[in-house]
Amino acid sequence: MSKVKDQYADGEAARAWARFIGDASRRTRHYGAFLRRLLRARGAERVLDVACGTGVDSVLLLEAGFDVTSCDASDQMLKHALRTRWARRKEPAFDRWAIEEANWLTLPEDLPDARDRFDAVLCLGNSFAHLPARPGPDPQADQRRAIANFWGCVRPGGALIVDHRNYDAILATGATPKSCFYYNNSVTDIRTSVVYVDGEAVEVAMDYEVGRGDGKSVEAVREESQKAKSCFRLTYYPHRLDDFCALLRDALGPVAGHTVYADFRPTPGYTHGLEGDGLGLPDLE
Amino acid sequence: MSKVKDQYADGEAARAWARFIGDASRRTRHYGAFLRRLLRARGAERVLDVACGTGVDSVLLLEAGFDVTSCDASDQMLKHALRTRWARRKEPAFDRWAIEEANWLTLPEDLPDARDRFDAVLCLGNSFAHLPARPGPDPQADQRRAIANFWGCVRPGGALIVDHRNYDAILATGATPKSCFYYNNSVTDIRTSVVYVDGEAVEVAMDYEVGRGDGKSVEAVREESQKAKSCFRLTYYPHRLDDFCALLRDALGPVAGHTVYADFRPTPGYTHGLEGDGLGLPDLE
Amino acid sequence: MSKVKDQYADGEAARAWARFIGDASRRTRHYGAFLRRLLRARGAERVLDVACGTGVDSVLLLEAGFDVTSCDASDQMLKHALRTRWARRKEPAFDRWAIEEANWLTLPEDLPDARDRFDAVLCLGNSFAHLPARPGPDPQADQRRAIANFWGCVRPGGALIVDHRNYDAILATGATPKSCFYYNNSVTDIRTSVVYVDGEAVEVAMDYEVGRGDGKSVEAVREESQKAKSCFRLTYYPHRLDDFCALLRDALGPVAGHTVYADFRPTPGYTHGLEGDGLGLPDLE
Amino acid sequence: MSKVKDQYADGEAARAWARFIGDASRRTRHYGAFLRRLLRARGAERVLDVACGTGVDSVLLLEAGFDVTSCDASDQMLKHALRTRWARRKEPAFDRWAIEEANWLTLPEDLPDARDRFDAVLCLGNSFAHLPARPGPDPQADQRRAIANFWGCVRPGGALIVDHRNYDAILATGATPKSCFYYNNSVTDIRTSVVYVDGEAVEVAMDYEVGRGDGKSVEAVREESQKAKSCFRLTYYPHRLDDFCALLRDALGPVAGHTVYADFRPTPGYTHGLEGDGLGLPDLE
Repeated sequence: MSKVKDQYADGEAARAWARFIGDASRRTRHYGAFLRRLLRARGAERVLDVACGTGVDSVLLLEAGFDVTSCDASDQMLKHALRTRWARRKEPAFDRWAIEEANWLTLPEDLPDARDRFDAVLCLGNSFAHLPARPGPDPQADQRRAIANFWGCVRPGGALIVDHRNYDAILATGATPKSCFYYNNSVTDIRTSVVYVDGEAVEVAMDYEVGRGDGKSVEAVREESQKAKSCFRLTYYPHRLDDFCALLRDALGPVAGHTVYADFRPTPGYTHGLEGDGLGLPDLE
Repeated sequence: MSKVKDQYADGEAARAWARFIGDASRRTRHYGAFLRRLLRARGAERVLDVACGTGVDSVLLLEAGFDVTSCDASDQMLKHALRTRWARRKEPAFDRWAIEEANWLTLPEDLPDARDRFDAVLCLGNSFAHLPARPGPDPQADQRRAIANFWGCVRPGGALIVDHRNYDAILATGATPKSCFYYNNSVTDIRTSVVYVDGEAVEVAMDYEVGRGDGKSVEAVREESQKAKSCFRLTYYPHRLDDFCALLRDALGPVAGHTVYADFRPTPGYTHGLEGDGLGLPDLE
Repeated sequence: MSKVKDQYADGEAARAWARFIGDASRRTRHYGAFLRRLLRARGAERVLDVACGTGVDSVLLLEAGFDVTSCDASDQMLKHALRTRWARRKEPAFDRWAIEEANWLTLPEDLPDARDRFDAVLCLGNSFAHLPARPGPDPQADQRRAIANFWGCVRPGGALIVDHRNYDAILATGATPKSCFYYNNSVTDIRTSVVYVDGEAVEVAMDYEVGRGDGKSVEAVREESQKAKSCFRLTYYPHRLDDFCALLRDALGPVAGHTVYADFRPTPGYTHGLEGDGLGLPDLE
Repeated sequence: MSKVKDQYADGEAARAWARFIGDASRRTRHYGAFLRRLLRARGAERVLDVACGTGVDSVLLLEAGFDVTSCDASDQMLKHALRTRWARRKEPAFDRWAIEEANWLTLPEDLPDARDRFDAVLCLGNSFAHLPARPGPDPQADQRRAIANFWGCVRPGGALIVDHRNYDAILATGATPKSCFYYNNSVTDIRTSVVYVDGEAVEVAMDYEVGRGDGKSVEAVREESQKAKSCFRLTYYPHRLDDFCALLRDALGPVAGHTVYADFRPTPGYTHGLEGDGLGLPDLE
């Protein structure tokens, strides 16, 4: 059985990513409120976070009182989650945190008890787009399987929430909006590569180079970054909004409801909520 | 010193390529006539073919009476040329064929006697486009160096002839015109991948799959092709016409003349003639 | 800075090893008693286990009331230890278990608070022999550095306990005593390879093949084993007793005491106790 | 079908080897005389050299009037042979030199016209020992197949000549007799590694480091050698004399005659002559 490749396998990317994202609490304040409102509006209690990474979102949900199972294919990412859980083991909320290594394509085997069990399954943070096209005649077969595996963990009447960046906008320009960003006092150059096969975009790669900003040129940051090994590449399948809606239909057949949230215009992306009961996901904002 | 990577290193591609091209004499009849007229119009005698491959073009030139030095970075390709030369060693023309392994980026070291020596230097068959972008701030540095190295082998008043496919047309559609070709009784699927970095096309990859045509579907050919190991990938830097003219100027500075031949419209490509004497390359057709 | 390579990096070896070792409690009963007596005889409380692997020995020590810091270079092995610690988090003893990823060659950086801190540092289970010869003029340089790094974590007056198998016996025959072992109902073939460089043994490799025993031939086990991916290779530096004593002297200079325990004759090996105070390690048995 | 791996594939070893061997004519004077006497004593005319390398021995035989077919699995080695043949193409003897790329394990396919054709098949220069043990239950299967393939090219009544170094002597000491040799004004360090599996020697590796001798230390030569990339590793199966005789019997069954020539005592090696007619190979010296 094929597996999702772990882009964070060497630990270096996990560390660079942590440096790059910096103070998680600031970044996720707005985002977390959205997510909690959405889950509470549906009365969700048991949540599966299938792309927990270092556990940032999962911790927000635990703190908000949810019962959380977190999984990720990257054991390098999970190390951080495991460390956090141990450090906060005396807080009762953290007793309700299950952390498992699991691959989306083998979810039924990796999480044998998860079937039909969760009020909500989350795949957030642009994680789904890490799943690449499979070479060959059916490039999106793995993606459909992963979506179906996620849905298999949703209890009847529960919801699946999956997001992706606004790749329509990225593909329109072929470049990340500005080539230089300031996050947490570090200046960063992002080089964007797009691979088209027979006219269809099938991969976007972003080469991040993270350095200290002190009025340095992009070139200086690049060189420094390469020396410090703080450059890393992340690759994505560039889901266009219409194509992703079609992918969900192909993978799941008819579902009771499908709501699309576009959090910021024109980027960064879209959040899809799929429900099993037709009560409707809340109309937030 | 960096070197051009040998895309034919494993011998498999060289063999598949030979199967794919098939009867060389038919394919090159038209092309060869063009080349001989061009060289004779300039009174060329000594010719350097810097991308001789299996030697098809070089043999045409030997048979037409030119004194030919052939080189290639791929020793797998050169094997075929060496075998041909040995088989025809009793023909006086083949006594005048020098065959050398040489890399464009180290041409002065690899062919120490070639400096200023040839009436014409040829880089044909879309070979130049095999030289990829170099990662980093100056992606076309290797390409400029190769052009300069070619020019260094041209005698004062001689000419450099280099061609490339019509990548403007390929990039406009993102796909090779038809996805199915018939060459020499074999049906072939060509998958075209294009890589853009920050909006600039920097690589075109063509995945060839060669099979027997008998009304088979493309899928059947693909599968058969993969079993028979007759699929192979060739990658190119997609030189746009305007950009390539600029590249030549950047590499060589002012030259006495520059003529562009567009052999077929809208594809496959362009042939550039650069001269050192300003007598003009012939106006063919 | 060079690092010890993780022989268990792919997780496969860690799983096969767990299957192979089987019921840990039975195997370690005798061994654990030896270890506890040794540590108690010296009044040790704080113990550093630098080769904890899945944590089997560390758990024995925790249960016996010691304060344990465990580390290993293999994060695949540590996964098991971390899982055990979480599962038993309600037991007070397990609150006193620190688990860290650390490499012997970079111990001062990886465990910055460990300097001079432990009553006893343990490197057991034939783990030290995993550290290979370094190619070049000083093949045992890494081994001396690791020993010195261990010793740096021993408080003044504390002890370092390090063991190795009886490689003198293994080298004498060139083969593991019997080529077929029964452990926990699984029949196993061990193929032993020894590498000599200029007459000196510098590596012993053991290829384990683990299968179910049902009167099967070794060949049948091998084939089954390869299909099930339950074969794995572990490599060791074959420390001869005299040479290892010399290595300890070279790495540490004079120490207050050095006792050698030979647990079983003629194999499997030797345990070395080095002390910082000269009170003597206990004369057990 | 498996193939012999080309130890000279990167061209570097071929060049280093040429530098190391140096003036071929001096080295081979004695050896060549032995070979010519042996072949003439049997009235051989058509000779197949299955390990021709750069062609040194083949050239000696051509010059002595034999009709030579040369083959080698290493196209890097063959490049030198092909260059020599072209350079001397006007000498009638060289018109009778066929050079082919061929692998011992696929000789019938690679040289389809060679069956039963040659008066003598030669595998000299310690080349046969390059064929390694095959992992698995029958480590010498490839070696038997190669011997059988050689024999298949010998005409009825012809002879097979194959040599190997005196590995009995090498294994007795575990080191190449002296660790420092002077060849052609270059000082060389040879590090010898021997791999034993379950007590049987299955591989000898020799790491050569070639440098200029000017009273330099071995260490200085090593460092210089690594910088100049003139160090290389060659690996051998260490054929003991008795075992090799058994191997020949197992591969060929009964043959009319088998003579062993021990050229120098105690090293370097043995030459085996196997005949198809029982007239006897000559008793030289």
